[in-house]
Amino acid sequence: MARVSLDTINPKVLKCEYAVRGEIVTLAQAVQEELKSKPGSRPFDEILYCNIGNPQSLGQQPITFFREVLALCDHPSILDKSETRGLFSADAIERARQILDQIPGRATGAYSHSQGIKGLRDAIAAGIEARDGFPADPNDIFLTDGASPAVHMMMQLLIRSEKDGILCPIPQYPLYSASIALHGGTLVPYYLDEATGWGLEVSELKKQWADAKSKGITPRALVVINPGNPTGQVLAENNQKEIVDFCKKEGLVLLADEVYQENVYVPEKKFHSFKKVARSMGYGEKDISVVSFQSVSKGYYGECGKRGGYMEVTGFGPEIREQIYKLASVNLCSNISGQILASLVMSPPKVGDESYESYSAEKDGILSSLKRRAKTLEDAFNKLDGVTCNKAEGAMYLFPCIRLSEKAIKAAEAAKTTPDNFYCRCLLNATGIVFVPGSGFRQVPGTWHFRCTILPQEDKIPAVVSRLTEFHKSFMEEFRE
Amino acid sequence: MARVSLDTINPKVLKCEYAVRGEIVTLAQAVQEELKSKPGSRPFDEILYCNIGNPQSLGQQPITFFREVLALCDHPSILDKSETRGLFSADAIERARQILDQIPGRATGAYSHSQGIKGLRDAIAAGIEARDGFPADPNDIFLTDGASPAVHMMMQLLIRSEKDGILCPIPQYPLYSASIALHGGTLVPYYLDEATGWGLEVSELKKQWADAKSKGITPRALVVINPGNPTGQVLAENNQKEIVDFCKKEGLVLLADEVYQENVYVPEKKFHSFKKVARSMGYGEKDISVVSFQSVSKGYYGECGKRGGYMEVTGFGPEIREQIYKLASVNLCSNISGQILASLVMSPPKVGDESYESYSAEKDGILSSLKRRAKTLEDAFNKLDGVTCNKAEGAMYLFPCIRLSEKAIKAAEAAKTTPDNFYCRCLLNATGIVFVPGSGFRQVPGTWHFRCTILPQEDKIPAVVSRLTEFHKSFMEEFRE
Repeated sequence: MARVSLDTINPKVLKCEYAVRGEIVTLAQAVQEELKSKPGSRPFDEILYCNIGNPQSLGQQPITFFREVLALCDHPSILDKSETRGLFSADAIERARQILDQIPGRATGAYSHSQGIKGLRDAIAAGIEARDGFPADPNDIFLTDGASPAVHMMMQLLIRSEKDGILCPIPQYPLYSASIALHGGTLVPYYLDEATGWGLEVSELKKQWADAKSKGITPRALVVINPGNPTGQVLAENNQKEIVDFCKKEGLVLLADEVYQENVYVPEKKFHSFKKVARSMGYGEKDISVVSFQSVSKGYYGECGKRGGYMEVTGFGPEIREQIYKLASVNLCSNISGQILASLVMSPPKVGDESYESYSAEKDGILSSLKRRAKTLEDAFNKLDGVTCNKAEGAMYLFPCIRLSEKAIKAAEAAKTTPDNFYCRCLLNATGIVFVPGSGFRQVPGTWHFRCTILPQEDKIPAVVSRLTEFHKSFMEEFRE
Repeated sequence: MARVSLDTINPKVLKCEYAVRGEIVTLAQAVQEELKSKPGSRPFDEILYCNIGNPQSLGQQPITFFREVLALCDHPSILDKSETRGLFSADAIERARQILDQIPGRATGAYSHSQGIKGLRDAIAAGIEARDGFPADPNDIFLTDGASPAVHMMMQLLIRSEKDGILCPIPQYPLYSASIALHGGTLVPYYLDEATGWGLEVSELKKQWADAKSKGITPRALVVINPGNPTGQVLAENNQKEIVDFCKKEGLVLLADEVYQENVYVPEKKFHSFKKVARSMGYGEKDISVVSFQSVSKGYYGECGKRGGYMEVTGFGPEIREQIYKLASVNLCSNISGQILASLVMSPPKVGDESYESYSAEKDGILSSLKRRAKTLEDAFNKLDGVTCNKAEGAMYLFPCIRLSEKAIKAAEAAKTTPDNFYCRCLLNATGIVFVPGSGFRQVPGTWHFRCTILPQEDKIPAVVSRLTEFHKSFMEEFRE
């Protein structure tokens, strides 16, 4: 008796896809099990996961100061013990005390206000002000279990039916397509221009907006991912201004995915938040709705497992804010460790604090290493026959384009899969390297890509490059026409 | 320019209500601010929050062993320091090491498997086996940020449209009505019988099931909350068997909210998981779909702020499991501290462990105090004129019935609110005590209730009782006909 079957579940769930943890990853896990049970069965002895922005899973160490504060907040009864001073830095102890003082009853085990603990939101707002040079209101901050639930919340708020459209970059981070599918809306694609380094052209936005309207779709919001995922570009401020003007003119909510704000690797580019850009143009609360998403999972901290993040919600009336609050309250609150961490990443140690030097050294070490790894991989991709790769300006990814022969495309067809998936499968089987096929992010039809993170530790990068280069050569050889 | 207005947001969001953090709580927060800025402005000097099952916000202390392990997992670099042995119990250090060994790369800052870390799921499955005496499979466990997201996930999976019905107890915990509304389904109410101690009659289930069918609604699942929220009853095993048979016969998914499994206060009742009951009847995977929800927020641990929990999903085919996994993977994973804590509550210290005695003393202290508080409040309610209150067998709530005069009902009408809300508002304004009006949980039309948690610390209970008693007397006096 089939009580629940694929025919009787929510078709929106069926429709939703999430490639970052999709087929290739499942296959990789199977190969990993095989390596455990039959060592030596493959020409490699470990899986190199380049599929997901999960730095600590690949050996990146957490920032010591942040972990000290978290540990002390988890077990405050050691704060006054003498041994604690031998184990923790003085400013971590001090910061933990300050944070505990901001929590009603010092109860880190209690549900907080559904937007997050007020004192932590104060710290985050102050951090945003320091970053942007424009005021930020703690009442605009909604702390969430990472950025993903915040994105879902906004999609849930805005999407009424498949007649509501969300403008999304293509390629995009599949959270967006998945979330739009789950909430039953329509993804209105706008294509980033690979030829100009994944440029975001406002003419393309206008074209796709008009095209959607002509099909009876109401565009409600525009998603911009800056720095880009999977594409790694950093938007120029002038470009951001055009985007802001477009959203203002068309009454679109600007959903700004800014989780890679600390990940910029080229001196000629700088991160500017969309709220700052809008404010610098003289646009205030009444002119444009901007939601900025931030996460503790990225940057130099990479604390994915802590599930911390926030959204800064501006330009909505109080009656809409109340509805967002209600959505937040149905899940009660986000986890308090994640809340604390979100406040720490927005207010890290300052010059003069005991931890400042070690904190700075850890931070700079991680960011400069990411920069070197990005460059090495970018160069390696560009050396591969038939592969071109844009500059890694920011974020944690490269999204190279690969031109595949008709023979390879036919082989993929025979294997009942897409050519990019076929390439990634072969790569995994031959080398243990895990990339995500471009189709998971969508791409210009007829073009093929894959996403590779820059996260393997530096001592593994040469192995990635040499295994990949060798595999690629033999793959191209095999499928040469 | 109204870019986003109440007319243009998702009407399902508008429809959703969540009383536990609703009007009365907002009012309470305003009164609290008033007390801060104008001390002495009210006849009381603090707000007594009895609205939400949030033990640590009212002074309950966390279990030391759990917090020790969490702190060590947050900052593993202190594990080998000599000072650590002075600050932490030996078994907490040992447990933290074991847990870290189960985490790939010991990386508590990495995204985990989307169902949660395998080693922690092993511990949870072992805990379920020890509790039930029937096998549990770690692959059936999905770790989540508290029970609420797990409930949403199942609703999202099952509900296709308003033609899909979810059988829910009335009164119910408003997560269910909110979640059904957000996912666009229909709540099919079945009424608990207040006269028999909130009895769950299968005849009532059958009646409501048939009634829904006659209206063109397809019942998909049955929600049972055991021990009951807000009603505090504990189901008898025979009753559970009837419920299981009903679900099996009608092909309903049994959604078993078992988050209060440790909160049973009367010797004549015992918690039995629905999966255990189904297995004890000889029903296996192929016979019935049962989902059991558990949380770190309740029990004697009360770790609401950690957002940990799991669902044990049984009786679905692999193709449906894959869809549930996909839903989990869209949010990547639940927070690792919450995952660790979920494994700890299902595998606490055992006899012989260094922490066992202190752990036991803390646990028993909390549970026996909750039992005393429940009894004191139950007795106090039953002494109030026009109020009757069922026995507090379990969970953390009492849900007394109050008979209000026509005059009070008219006064509520004049104040543009429901009579139960009116009573709770007056109570808050006069005493600072926060109850949730019964309408937030739904109730038999024409009857009025409120929910009161048993969580104020024992030294505050006399104040709750005397303030309430005094208020109630004058309220009934004022509105006597």
